[in-house]
Amino acid sequence: MDKLDVIDAITNGNYQLETTLGKLHILGSSCKDIQQRYGVREDGLYFIITTNGVVYQTFCDMTTAGGGWTLVASVHENNMYGKCTAGDRWSSQQGNNANNPDGDGTWANLKTFGTPEGATSDDYKNPGYYDIVGEDVSIWHVPNDTPVKKWSCDSILQYHTATKFLTGHGGNLLNLYKRLPVRYNAGRCPSNHGPSIPIVYDKGDAETTKNLYGPNARGQFVPGYITFRVFNYERGAMALCSGTKPVRCHTEHFCIGGGGYFPEGNPRQCGDFPGFDWNGYGTNRDWSASKAVSEAAVLIFYR
Amino acid sequence: MDKLDVIDAITNGNYQLETTLGKLHILGSSCKDIQQRYGVREDGLYFIITTNGVVYQTFCDMTTAGGGWTLVASVHENNMYGKCTAGDRWSSQQGNNANNPDGDGTWANLKTFGTPEGATSDDYKNPGYYDIVGEDVSIWHVPNDTPVKKWSCDSILQYHTATKFLTGHGGNLLNLYKRLPVRYNAGRCPSNHGPSIPIVYDKGDAETTKNLYGPNARGQFVPGYITFRVFNYERGAMALCSGTKPVRCHTEHFCIGGGGYFPEGNPRQCGDFPGFDWNGYGTNRDWSASKAVSEAAVLIFYR
Amino acid sequence: MDKLDVIDAITNGNYQLETTLGKLHILGSSCKDIQQRYGVREDGLYFIITTNGVVYQTFCDMTTAGGGWTLVASVHENNMYGKCTAGDRWSSQQGNNANNPDGDGTWANLKTFGTPEGATSDDYKNPGYYDIVGEDVSIWHVPNDTPVKKWSCDSILQYHTATKFLTGHGGNLLNLYKRLPVRYNAGRCPSNHGPSIPIVYDKGDAETTKNLYGPNARGQFVPGYITFRVFNYERGAMALCSGTKPVRCHTEHFCIGGGGYFPEGNPRQCGDFPGFDWNGYGTNRDWSASKAVSEAAVLIFYR
Repeated sequence: MDKLDVIDAITNGNYQLETTLGKLHILGSSCKDIQQRYGVREDGLYFIITTNGVVYQTFCDMTTAGGGWTLVASVHENNMYGKCTAGDRWSSQQGNNANNPDGDGTWANLKTFGTPEGATSDDYKNPGYYDIVGEDVSIWHVPNDTPVKKWSCDSILQYHTATKFLTGHGGNLLNLYKRLPVRYNAGRCPSNHGPSIPIVYDKGDAETTKNLYGPNARGQFVPGYITFRVFNYERGAMALCSGTKPVRCHTEHFCIGGGGYFPEGNPRQCGDFPGFDWNGYGTNRDWSASKAVSEAAVLIFYR
Repeated sequence: MDKLDVIDAITNGNYQLETTLGKLHILGSSCKDIQQRYGVREDGLYFIITTNGVVYQTFCDMTTAGGGWTLVASVHENNMYGKCTAGDRWSSQQGNNANNPDGDGTWANLKTFGTPEGATSDDYKNPGYYDIVGEDVSIWHVPNDTPVKKWSCDSILQYHTATKFLTGHGGNLLNLYKRLPVRYNAGRCPSNHGPSIPIVYDKGDAETTKNLYGPNARGQFVPGYITFRVFNYERGAMALCSGTKPVRCHTEHFCIGGGGYFPEGNPRQCGDFPGFDWNGYGTNRDWSASKAVSEAAVLIFYR
Repeated sequence: MDKLDVIDAITNGNYQLETTLGKLHILGSSCKDIQQRYGVREDGLYFIITTNGVVYQTFCDMTTAGGGWTLVASVHENNMYGKCTAGDRWSSQQGNNANNPDGDGTWANLKTFGTPEGATSDDYKNPGYYDIVGEDVSIWHVPNDTPVKKWSCDSILQYHTATKFLTGHGGNLLNLYKRLPVRYNAGRCPSNHGPSIPIVYDKGDAETTKNLYGPNARGQFVPGYITFRVFNYERGAMALCSGTKPVRCHTEHFCIGGGGYFPEGNPRQCGDFPGFDWNGYGTNRDWSASKAVSEAAVLIFYR
């Protein structure tokens, strides 16, 4: 008996279900593993199994730069006016509070939440975030509430690293952020910033990246990189400058995620997209980011 | 090899598990699909698979009016004293705030939460809400914390539409609410109300419906309908008048769900069951709803 | 065709996946059922199926005192400075409020949340909590953010009951807490306390237990028991004194979980670990608990 027989037994020969159910029998430890094991080339949702045997579904990008990218997380700003309120899982849902310097601690703990189909409508973190051992990171900026099938097409920016830098940081972001905690006052800008890794653009370019942020913010970074764990002038911590390398320290206007305390303008910088609305929400004036990037979820892949 | 052989191999011939495991091999795109494909007549939890291949479990009502109804959501008021606080996912968990006119946006986004077994103890929304293409809606009002097996028996009210109205609104509530946003100030009462669809009662009747709401509220609606996306005098938006058609505009006392801002008595009307406690919680005096309806989850099915 | 053939068909003969996938074909109504049915002796994640047919994964302790223990819940204090804020699911996420005497009601409702792999980084409650019919309870105190494979080794304390007391309380904690509600002012200390069940230590002892709590708190309890549903002097309700039997009424310094209102020092006692930080967080001075127990999740098993 082979796989097709099993599927046939279950579907009673129905064609439409057979196609979908075929995926139930494709299972690996990551999208890369699935690609190598089964020769799969189609983007979509697949079943992944962790080292401990936990089975979950997530989206695999099977095409970009050879494919094999596993979606492990999305950072979604549910309410720019909420300052470390419900839904700010990648910074803090406990208000802006110096007593809670790690915030929710999401970058360095084993908590998971959300769903792959809802990754542009909600924060998302699956077991792959801490379980998969990868080499590189890919990021897509996808407009909020976009359905899975339109993610790639509707993305405003896509890029990936190609240096295998993750190998030197424990193979995934959990291990990276355990060593480089996203914690208020755990360091200063720029001395204690984590690595800045050059990126290859798959959609958009350095110019696109630059224009997503406010005119004043553009002088604070160089596009073409992903930078991990940075601080701002007041020692507020952020997890990810997605698309940029800071050259000055007003990092809260273009970096995302964070610890639980941002001193400046308390509580105005606290949140998953910290100071993106400093001069008004979506205005793209002065320090404020564009509406496009403010309303796009940041999808994080490993390979 | 047929299905029973597979089950037998897995259960080692154990009878109790065989019965339950039989359901693992019944899989369709909706409860209606399962009913048609397998001839199933028994209410209970079944596995559904979405267009993208996501597999989830939900409750199927296989008996009412021919059966084939898929539970896609429940609206559960976790704390009537909390005004747009944690747990108010069908309105806002961000407080009463004019800057957040859509609230959590749950009616028109791809976020899912909760579980079928917990649908009377917590809010629930599964992928069927946005994935299934249905024709009609069925609603059960089930007392909080009722276990699945007692839902039907303990319901205080059950009814369904029979006009296939969903076909004209994109086949599900996601598409309906994308066109008719549940957003503060997106329209006014009654000019911009969505459709009022007549209902067939499966349990209870127009009189039962009426008595669930406050004496003053009863003059504001006609029972025997489901109405979608309405406003109140102050332009607060609500998603669903379950069992009623508003004829006047104090809709907050008998309609549920909502945007993120209700001007009157700020913040007293903000929440999943907006103004149900206007004259005291569960008093059923003046404008206040009965304890029975205030403490019953609203279960939403498609067929 | 037997189980190994099915696995082989799915894995295409890959050895690593075969081992992990073997578990996909081990399924029972509890860890005890799995142990008896398949003779399994290895700790780890297994698939469980509820009476209604819901399938979920959880951790099975297959070794302690004969094994067969199902992890059904964890109580995790995400932020000791948050007083009944987001993440306080075992007390209240709605603030300290006399209008909400049951708080979130988690101990006695059908809501579930969290994941087994995340049980030390987040609150966890699975369907076994209300579905399994057990006889005894086992508890592990595991440092926050410990991965599954290190739980047992890194635990600071492990113990279990051996009197089959659950049989007299409906077979699980849902039924126990339905009869003994965790509700502010539903009784008083000590007259209305629930049962105190003697424990057998699997790691640590009475002395270890004692030292985890503040010097003043140590005079308030006798170690060597699990006590269910207690009150404090002000009639605040708590669910679980894990490791202790109260002999006086300052129970908030060593008992966990709770209703939605704690009058004393409003709101300072409201939270999953109520008054553990009364004289400073983790100081272990006066009434304050140690940092070790304040930063350890309480894992609850049934057998």
